[in-house]
Amino acid sequence: MASTGTLGEMLSTLLERQPFQRKSAADGSVAASCRALLEAPSEASGRQLAEEILQAIKTLTDEDRDRFYQFLNDDLDIDPDRIAELATAYKVTPTPKVYKALAHAAEPPRQDLFRQLNQAPDATADLVQLRADLLTRLKVKPDLGRTDHDLFHLFQSWFNRGFLVLRHITWESPASILEKIIAYEAVHEIHNWGDLRRRLLPADRKCFAFFHPAMPDDPLIFVEVALTKGVPESIQELLSEGREELRAEEANTAVFYSISNCQAGLAGISFGNSLIKQVVRDLSAEAPNLKRFVTLSPIPGLSRWAEREGITLQTDDPQQIRQLTAHYLLAAKKSDGRPLDPVARFHLANGALVHKVHAGADTSKKGLTQSAGAMVNYLYDLSRISQNIEQFDRKKEVSASGAVRTLAKQAARGARPQPE
Amino acid sequence: MASTGTLGEMLSTLLERQPFQRKSAADGSVAASCRALLEAPSEASGRQLAEEILQAIKTLTDEDRDRFYQFLNDDLDIDPDRIAELATAYKVTPTPKVYKALAHAAEPPRQDLFRQLNQAPDATADLVQLRADLLTRLKVKPDLGRTDHDLFHLFQSWFNRGFLVLRHITWESPASILEKIIAYEAVHEIHNWGDLRRRLLPADRKCFAFFHPAMPDDPLIFVEVALTKGVPESIQELLSEGREELRAEEANTAVFYSISNCQAGLAGISFGNSLIKQVVRDLSAEAPNLKRFVTLSPIPGLSRWAEREGITLQTDDPQQIRQLTAHYLLAAKKSDGRPLDPVARFHLANGALVHKVHAGADTSKKGLTQSAGAMVNYLYDLSRISQNIEQFDRKKEVSASGAVRTLAKQAARGARPQPE
Amino acid sequence: MASTGTLGEMLSTLLERQPFQRKSAADGSVAASCRALLEAPSEASGRQLAEEILQAIKTLTDEDRDRFYQFLNDDLDIDPDRIAELATAYKVTPTPKVYKALAHAAEPPRQDLFRQLNQAPDATADLVQLRADLLTRLKVKPDLGRTDHDLFHLFQSWFNRGFLVLRHITWESPASILEKIIAYEAVHEIHNWGDLRRRLLPADRKCFAFFHPAMPDDPLIFVEVALTKGVPESIQELLSEGREELRAEEANTAVFYSISNCQAGLAGISFGNSLIKQVVRDLSAEAPNLKRFVTLSPIPGLSRWAEREGITLQTDDPQQIRQLTAHYLLAAKKSDGRPLDPVARFHLANGALVHKVHAGADTSKKGLTQSAGAMVNYLYDLSRISQNIEQFDRKKEVSASGAVRTLAKQAARGARPQPE
Amino acid sequence: MASTGTLGEMLSTLLERQPFQRKSAADGSVAASCRALLEAPSEASGRQLAEEILQAIKTLTDEDRDRFYQFLNDDLDIDPDRIAELATAYKVTPTPKVYKALAHAAEPPRQDLFRQLNQAPDATADLVQLRADLLTRLKVKPDLGRTDHDLFHLFQSWFNRGFLVLRHITWESPASILEKIIAYEAVHEIHNWGDLRRRLLPADRKCFAFFHPAMPDDPLIFVEVALTKGVPESIQELLSEGREELRAEEANTAVFYSISNCQAGLAGISFGNSLIKQVVRDLSAEAPNLKRFVTLSPIPGLSRWAEREGITLQTDDPQQIRQLTAHYLLAAKKSDGRPLDPVARFHLANGALVHKVHAGADTSKKGLTQSAGAMVNYLYDLSRISQNIEQFDRKKEVSASGAVRTLAKQAARGARPQPE
Repeated sequence: MASTGTLGEMLSTLLERQPFQRKSAADGSVAASCRALLEAPSEASGRQLAEEILQAIKTLTDEDRDRFYQFLNDDLDIDPDRIAELATAYKVTPTPKVYKALAHAAEPPRQDLFRQLNQAPDATADLVQLRADLLTRLKVKPDLGRTDHDLFHLFQSWFNRGFLVLRHITWESPASILEKIIAYEAVHEIHNWGDLRRRLLPADRKCFAFFHPAMPDDPLIFVEVALTKGVPESIQELLSEGREELRAEEANTAVFYSISNCQAGLAGISFGNSLIKQVVRDLSAEAPNLKRFVTLSPIPGLSRWAEREGITLQTDDPQQIRQLTAHYLLAAKKSDGRPLDPVARFHLANGALVHKVHAGADTSKKGLTQSAGAMVNYLYDLSRISQNIEQFDRKKEVSASGAVRTLAKQAARGARPQPE
Repeated sequence: MASTGTLGEMLSTLLERQPFQRKSAADGSVAASCRALLEAPSEASGRQLAEEILQAIKTLTDEDRDRFYQFLNDDLDIDPDRIAELATAYKVTPTPKVYKALAHAAEPPRQDLFRQLNQAPDATADLVQLRADLLTRLKVKPDLGRTDHDLFHLFQSWFNRGFLVLRHITWESPASILEKIIAYEAVHEIHNWGDLRRRLLPADRKCFAFFHPAMPDDPLIFVEVALTKGVPESIQELLSEGREELRAEEANTAVFYSISNCQAGLAGISFGNSLIKQVVRDLSAEAPNLKRFVTLSPIPGLSRWAEREGITLQTDDPQQIRQLTAHYLLAAKKSDGRPLDPVARFHLANGALVHKVHAGADTSKKGLTQSAGAMVNYLYDLSRISQNIEQFDRKKEVSASGAVRTLAKQAARGARPQPE
Repeated sequence: MASTGTLGEMLSTLLERQPFQRKSAADGSVAASCRALLEAPSEASGRQLAEEILQAIKTLTDEDRDRFYQFLNDDLDIDPDRIAELATAYKVTPTPKVYKALAHAAEPPRQDLFRQLNQAPDATADLVQLRADLLTRLKVKPDLGRTDHDLFHLFQSWFNRGFLVLRHITWESPASILEKIIAYEAVHEIHNWGDLRRRLLPADRKCFAFFHPAMPDDPLIFVEVALTKGVPESIQELLSEGREELRAEEANTAVFYSISNCQAGLAGISFGNSLIKQVVRDLSAEAPNLKRFVTLSPIPGLSRWAEREGITLQTDDPQQIRQLTAHYLLAAKKSDGRPLDPVARFHLANGALVHKVHAGADTSKKGLTQSAGAMVNYLYDLSRISQNIEQFDRKKEVSASGAVRTLAKQAARGARPQPE
Repeated sequence: MASTGTLGEMLSTLLERQPFQRKSAADGSVAASCRALLEAPSEASGRQLAEEILQAIKTLTDEDRDRFYQFLNDDLDIDPDRIAELATAYKVTPTPKVYKALAHAAEPPRQDLFRQLNQAPDATADLVQLRADLLTRLKVKPDLGRTDHDLFHLFQSWFNRGFLVLRHITWESPASILEKIIAYEAVHEIHNWGDLRRRLLPADRKCFAFFHPAMPDDPLIFVEVALTKGVPESIQELLSEGREELRAEEANTAVFYSISNCQAGLAGISFGNSLIKQVVRDLSAEAPNLKRFVTLSPIPGLSRWAEREGITLQTDDPQQIRQLTAHYLLAAKKSDGRPLDPVARFHLANGALVHKVHAGADTSKKGLTQSAGAMVNYLYDLSRISQNIEQFDRKKEVSASGAVRTLAKQAARGARPQPE
């Protein structure tokens, strides 16, 4: 800020300057349209232009797409000099006028572009798709992380809990949504429509999803729930075709046996916690006989960890499996002190505790591969959730039932890496 | 940025520092709850806390409320030093990591607070209400303009065109919404339910409103439309009880005779342009016999301007009224070159042109007071909108029909300030 | 049945004969269209013809309308000879073929006409309207009772409980329906929209109505309910503007304070009983704290009865009023043994009992005129309804609380016709 | 009618008598419940009783069910003596009172029972199911035709066109309804959900169904429509997976390629005609570019007829196939003069004409078996429908295009039974 003169003069000069733009070699016609949209004196034809741009983006070649991302990342970036100057000015004169100028400078033009694009019909879904694609390029072009952060930040605002709508997914739901449930199920594959029907139609099966009003046909996340008598010990049993249906009033336990995020473009925006809490609240109100809310969860990292540790998981020794599972969940940690297992991290951070571990609980190929068939129930005990979160967050302490702690101790004592 | 050492060291120090907070003398328990919400390690009980805070805000005394606003404005402000440092760092190392840190620093904690509060049920309406209240304090405390800007900025993102829903308001609409239409009508008062019924039920009367999904019972803006044969010249005639109803296929003109913004808390966020365009598009598709889209608009600034100019408007001389009205609309300008009349500014900026002026067109007390009974039709000619916007925006040129231009010229020649 | 020959011959002759038609002097073009509709070889243009006929009926002059009713009543009547012959034949040969022929003969062509007319859009409402009009002519032309019976019979089938839809009427209901609630309220007038709002919006006020799917905008019957703490003793108190609202969980009593039939054309088809039962069931399920379901009912026949009996009702003597009211409700009977009071007949036939009587309970002009201000609570005690119905139906016994019975006895002892 | 005395005495005796009941040997407890329902003094517990009876019927053994049907047919039959007496009385005194008594006598108690049963939830579907079952017994017990006729008569009243709701079936429809479309498709089997999706999702494919409000999840009839350019000549081509989708505005022809009745219990109640007409009307209004409405129909009776006639259909001689098909459709008649082919009868009675015949048009096993692969387009020409119906109905004349008539003549000349 080398300007001389009075503060007032300096400021007014500062406030009138145009935003800086990093130049990209070539940005093609989509970029030109984007600039036009940003500069449009009015929203006159903005909606149509936005629609055209979003259509154009979809048909870009890989090369042009890379160029377009570069355009967003560089040409529509912030001007750090201007920010620094305005920040310094703000320190001295924290007026609303300077504040607005600073806020404006600190927001890159691409952020504004995304908002302008969103006026087109179905634009929100297109923008989520755009980020999904962008994320696939991050590995080779980590620099695009700046643009990604802007989309992430925007989506955090747009997909705020207050805007989400919880919907009960049933066999009466539109087929166009149900086919997405089939496609998005990420934990226990839904093989066909008959399989889906068995997870939705019986009175002791439920499914809930969050939607955003601007994407009414596309779930963001969904959870599948089984109402049971007692805590189930096997996923195959839970999903078996021949099983006997429970009448609603016989059930005392709600089992969250599958949670799937649906939108790659919303990575990093957490819906799972809110969803589980909302469903626990709604089911409690609707069925007061439900006394327990547990998961029946996979343990995706167990086999990998055991291998690394040189431990052989013996599928024919259920006791060994249970002990090692308990040990893994309670003691295997990342460098930051949190559990190694990603599913464990998710539920423990939400305030659940490790309730029970089971051997031979998922005998599918995937289950045997990732965890030698072991599964775990995390328990959501409403009276202990806050305390659990506190412990987990502050002290990195994993809450667990006495039985699981005992198993873990046995493992610690006995289950040393076996000489082979 | 006095740090020595390598750039890497400097950066990592920088990125780990906690945000600065301007201290306020006392911020009471709502403030404490707000801090708790911001610091909550997880959203565990966040929704409930948000709900409690929003309830608490509603019951604050005036004094406490001032203190709370001060807390938002000062304690939850940005840290300019940190922004300046990070901006400087970004100039050198424009990595995603630094970018995120800078973006985070440039956003004041109150912005995040507003987003956290929004997770509570009905929070969006509460936040809009909060800003409505805040705006009333801006005159005495202009400094609160900083906080206001954050709400404004948030709402611009949340109330993006892409999230708005156009609804046809009919006599079949919920009474809870219709009573709001009665309350919000700001141009031609709706005196009672019978009056409203006459504006909604006949086949040649329409009403459209924008809603936001998070405020489903509260319109943001609405427009009332009359389908007519020819361009109407009087509002009283248009709304008269005894008038004969037109069959849909007889109408060739759609008259936008009233547009009302409903939410004081959304001041500055423009919906009118989008609404008019959407309604023009929808009506065109639905009724191809509609050939003209005009307004029948008040001229709120005419009398005031005439008085200032020393001109006496002669209600018994319709020709004089028409000439002066034309002159006023075309020639009376603000210092920035745009028309003096606010309604003219709105429609001209949207691409309309001044089509016709009428004397004796609004004989209500309000009409006689503000414009000696004169009204004007602005014409939305789809084929000329872009061009009109361009002209208006670039050259500050007011588009008008030949007839109106002629009238204006006559006024310029004849209607000099009369010697009195 | 003068035919000779074998039974088979006779039958086949019988089954082929055309239906007989009583001739009317002149039946005009609507009648001709009706015949065309009945004879139409296919429903090809039936729907359109039906629509035209229903439109034509609406515009008939009084004289033509009378002629049209006569046409329905006489020309489209049954052929008793044919019925008698077929009945005799059926006695001998009860085959499906003869049965169908008899069933067909026993149904007059006008019945079929009504069904054919019903294929037009909104025809059901038109036919209900037709009967409403027909009923007004019955006094002068009692003979039309035959046609009326056919409509009644048809409506009993069409407006069967299984086809009715219960809807909760709220302040969110369409204004087009709410204006009908205002218009149809027959017990305690709704003076304006503000008055209606006070009966719908508060959490302790409810309204439920039956609708038929073919008349979705027109309620058939509705009941207004107040949730209270204790049994209310005055309608003015219940409806007072200034009253304090009760929170849902504080209420222990649901008061049915107004039931109104909406469709004159459905006279004689009883919806009230089903409606009360359904609402009792739904409210019980929704609010388990509701322990009592009572009415606060007018006593439309009290003053008239007292006058006839030469008794003077002393509005300044509440005890006398209560005693006489109790006596009137329990002891004043029609020649068939059922209570004189029509509202009493309705609720007692539904299984309610006389729970409490109040003086000064309806101080409106109507209330003072019809019952000297007295009102009564009928109690719906689910555990006693069947028994009450049995008693009332078989033995004409009026169930009542001990307190009311005592009052009635006191009246019987003391309240002899006073010497005047 | 052996009574002596005055006519008045006779009549009043007559009107007070109880309905006669044919006795059945034993009718078990369901029958007893039915009697209770019929005699119930009030509908107090009627709804519950109705529900219990409908449940009980579902679990009857075959033997008990037969007994129950016999009970309906005999015990709840009409009393022909009483009908004959009242008919005779009515001839002399055609008063409303006698009319009502006669109408009441002419309706068997079972008719009233069915209406009473219908007050239970979902009763309408149960009653339709009851008739479906009853129809299967008619062959062995033709006598039950009497009871069947009463159900038929009731359903004709209940499923009146005025009560039906047309719904567009799309890929957004509830899966619970779509699975019924798959199950009920009777013409061209839907093999799986993917197959269904191809018939619903593309912009040039439509499906419409009639529903009754009391059976909202169960279609009564549905039609599948393809929008095409030109008249299609092969069903396999029309349904092929790889086909190119047409944009809505390119289509000039709507092809009804499949109509399926869904409810066996509604046999004899015709919905097809109304459905086709409604869909033609709706599509015309929605897509003015549709100029032609044709079917692509199977010819179920062709092969059977040819065999009977000693004709060999040569699938390798398309010209022969076309000629014989034309001849069959135009000249092969039933004893009553109407076409032998049931699908031809349906469309011709609705006013369509035989437009075009195709060889090799349905190469499925079913198509080859029933018609040697031949199919036919019936054309619905709105301007000729009435005339066609008239001709078909009065003169049994089959309307056909010139081309088809020529083919038929060639067949008549050349296609004599070939010597083999």
